[in-house]
Amino acid sequence: MEITIVGGGLVGSLAACIFGQKGHKVQLYESRPDPNSAAGKLLRGRSINLALSNRGRATLRRAGLEELVLSKAIPMRGRMLHGQNGSVKAVLYDPVANQVGATCQRSTPCIYSVSRRYLNELLLQEAAALPNVSVNFNCKLIDADAGKGLAKFRKKDDDSSEEETLVEKRSDLIIGADGAHSALRQTLLKRPMTNFSQKYIQHGYIELYIPATDKGEFALEKNHLHIWPRDRFMLIALPNLDGSFTVTLFMPFEIFDTLNTEEKVLTFFDGQFPDAVPLLGRKNLCHDFLTTKPSTLISISCCPMNGGKAVLVGDAAHAMVPFYGQGMNAGFEDILILEEIIPNSDLSSGAGVEKYLEQFSTARSSDAQAICELAMYNYEEMRHLVNQKSYYWRRMIDIGLNKLLGQVWTPLYTSVTFSATPYSKCIENKKWQDKVISKMYAYMTVAVGASVATYLVSRYQRESLTDLVVKWGREMLQQKL
Amino acid sequence: MEITIVGGGLVGSLAACIFGQKGHKVQLYESRPDPNSAAGKLLRGRSINLALSNRGRATLRRAGLEELVLSKAIPMRGRMLHGQNGSVKAVLYDPVANQVGATCQRSTPCIYSVSRRYLNELLLQEAAALPNVSVNFNCKLIDADAGKGLAKFRKKDDDSSEEETLVEKRSDLIIGADGAHSALRQTLLKRPMTNFSQKYIQHGYIELYIPATDKGEFALEKNHLHIWPRDRFMLIALPNLDGSFTVTLFMPFEIFDTLNTEEKVLTFFDGQFPDAVPLLGRKNLCHDFLTTKPSTLISISCCPMNGGKAVLVGDAAHAMVPFYGQGMNAGFEDILILEEIIPNSDLSSGAGVEKYLEQFSTARSSDAQAICELAMYNYEEMRHLVNQKSYYWRRMIDIGLNKLLGQVWTPLYTSVTFSATPYSKCIENKKWQDKVISKMYAYMTVAVGASVATYLVSRYQRESLTDLVVKWGREMLQQKL
Repeated sequence: MEITIVGGGLVGSLAACIFGQKGHKVQLYESRPDPNSAAGKLLRGRSINLALSNRGRATLRRAGLEELVLSKAIPMRGRMLHGQNGSVKAVLYDPVANQVGATCQRSTPCIYSVSRRYLNELLLQEAAALPNVSVNFNCKLIDADAGKGLAKFRKKDDDSSEEETLVEKRSDLIIGADGAHSALRQTLLKRPMTNFSQKYIQHGYIELYIPATDKGEFALEKNHLHIWPRDRFMLIALPNLDGSFTVTLFMPFEIFDTLNTEEKVLTFFDGQFPDAVPLLGRKNLCHDFLTTKPSTLISISCCPMNGGKAVLVGDAAHAMVPFYGQGMNAGFEDILILEEIIPNSDLSSGAGVEKYLEQFSTARSSDAQAICELAMYNYEEMRHLVNQKSYYWRRMIDIGLNKLLGQVWTPLYTSVTFSATPYSKCIENKKWQDKVISKMYAYMTVAVGASVATYLVSRYQRESLTDLVVKWGREMLQQKL
Repeated sequence: MEITIVGGGLVGSLAACIFGQKGHKVQLYESRPDPNSAAGKLLRGRSINLALSNRGRATLRRAGLEELVLSKAIPMRGRMLHGQNGSVKAVLYDPVANQVGATCQRSTPCIYSVSRRYLNELLLQEAAALPNVSVNFNCKLIDADAGKGLAKFRKKDDDSSEEETLVEKRSDLIIGADGAHSALRQTLLKRPMTNFSQKYIQHGYIELYIPATDKGEFALEKNHLHIWPRDRFMLIALPNLDGSFTVTLFMPFEIFDTLNTEEKVLTFFDGQFPDAVPLLGRKNLCHDFLTTKPSTLISISCCPMNGGKAVLVGDAAHAMVPFYGQGMNAGFEDILILEEIIPNSDLSSGAGVEKYLEQFSTARSSDAQAICELAMYNYEEMRHLVNQKSYYWRRMIDIGLNKLLGQVWTPLYTSVTFSATPYSKCIENKKWQDKVISKMYAYMTVAVGASVATYLVSRYQRESLTDLVVKWGREMLQQKL
């Protein structure tokens, strides 16, 4: 059938690869210029780093691109937590598989730091190389009629041109991969019974940079996601292939607003992230910090994700805050699920596509909602909970029970990041685990209480209960005095 | 200053009256034709009945229109609950002020059934009669630049024409009163940090009709809001001036879907609303039911409500489900609050309007959120809780404490409907009352327990506690045997 893909970001371009490989006739429209053109090379684009994990890898594998991408990515075996006194502590995703000295296998629970720009260009290139896929840049969606499968674009005649042509395209399926501010979604929101929410959090972020050392080496331990958790805010760093780290500071806007001079910025960083300052470089840090406006973070939920012959995927349907590292992974997983739902027999006709899109939305909406919520929750975990003792107790229990019971007891982070378990099921499991653990505590309390009672009764068997309590109280007092 | 009002519904046209009376130069744009034109007379519009209460009345009073409107409205002294066996029970809003035979004063806690069409036409007429207000029909907002105070409309040359002219209007303030599907809001949502949600509930509604009797009298007790609460759904009826009642059935769509033949409709109504069927008329009931598609119910929240020189009011900012009868009242209250925040000194220049709109949004957002939530909650109360004994216990306690303590203890419904207490404060009060009542229960339990204990101790003074319990148990057993 004929497929129109709106948006040539990560999810849209991978969708073009997957549906193109299946033999569909795919037209991809992207509002930005070709990244290889002069204008495209100037575009800075969004955050440079991505954390690729199992769900994203599964879709890349389907497109035959997993190995190529992983070969250009850096595995991260766990979190490296940086204390305020400069101390560091590694918290590995799987302490056994990731022990020091072990080689990082493709099956080892690792997440992969990969460059957004590299990955996007690769996917666009792979899509464009298919004979039945055509990629159109400088095309901005201005209207759509999902019922008719009609999409209208305004096409700039060339990168620098002000001249525009109107392009109308009718197809059997429109895939909206046009991001958090999706124009296709705007048209779907007018359909009745479409629920939608967009929520900005009161925290923003800016990107900073740790260059490679003079010897071209990594300035921090290479195979970790570095975190400086400080309760109300946090700094993170992800490795790049060239030995540098991309550093991101997440913080309430109200704190950003107060840091408006070099002196205040340095005082803040020296106090909070003393070990990071020399690596960032005081001059570059101040320059980057003071010349960058913090970016906003948005969470989007749209249900249903479909309407007529159109469907939303990725950020267009479920933009999330970046704290679970699942934005791209969830978007890629959308494509895998969509591709599995649309049967091969409809390859040519496009008949009944509405029905399959409904199935997709029914299957996917609650998971999309779930990962958006988890992402919001993980900000709390990353910047605050990891500073609490209870977090490590729970982690020890989780790891112990996981080793003992296997898949029956998969910790939340593991099931989200290293499995294909539906996100909503991951949350259900976590709730069940929480219940089991509080019951365990309750049983332990009862067991301890019963032991004490048994001892007391055996000791004071024939005395009355009131006397017993009074006597016990006296003894306690005497021991204390 | 110059004010553009988008939307000439109830809230927009009242805003035109109020700001026009203050001397501002007001341009009102409405997408529909003039209701007095041939095309306008054909338009059916939304639900015919409205329940006007204190907040709405306060704004009408400010416009000098309260008495006129009330003279064309029917006071409702309370709810009249219809049981499944045909029984009726009156639940008055204020059992003392509304006792049988009392005349309905303007100060009596009553809500007023008023015709939407009458009210809207009156307000448009009053606005248009002001020399500094002009009302433009057939003008649909297509774009706006809130920062510049710029609004663009597409104007149909006449009601039936396909010809359109582009109208651009720059002003000091744009008031968006263009309803739940507000076009002005669309332009504001693109501004960063604007949170928004739209949520449809799984229930829809259709309107039915009880005509006046052959003698031209009301077929049901006139001065009540009639409710047939049936847990999962409900029927309500509001009186009209001509002796008829407008009847609305609220119900899950899935039940609507099953009632697709005359037989099924009648079986359903005979079983659920036996006393209403003869009044509705079996033939008309079936005709109306089977030829009407149930309408949807949406709840909208938008925060902030302002952006640049533009502000959203009424449904555009906070469309709500209709179960608290506060949609119009909350919209009218927006205008009163907005008018009070914008000082008279800025009458001519429009300087600093952005600042006042921010103040308005800060003051109003949490109340808008609160009433949307209350409206959702009241559906539960109207269709289900009123069938529970606990509801009447709580009501008795509330009324008693209100008589005893006055304003210190205002029940939730009273403060929402018959006061100007900010909606969020009404919820706070309710929470405080809930706490006090559970404490009262706890104290009563303790008091009863203490009395029993005192009695027991005085009777068995010198015996040990265990013996006492054993003896007491035996006595209880003996009494029972």
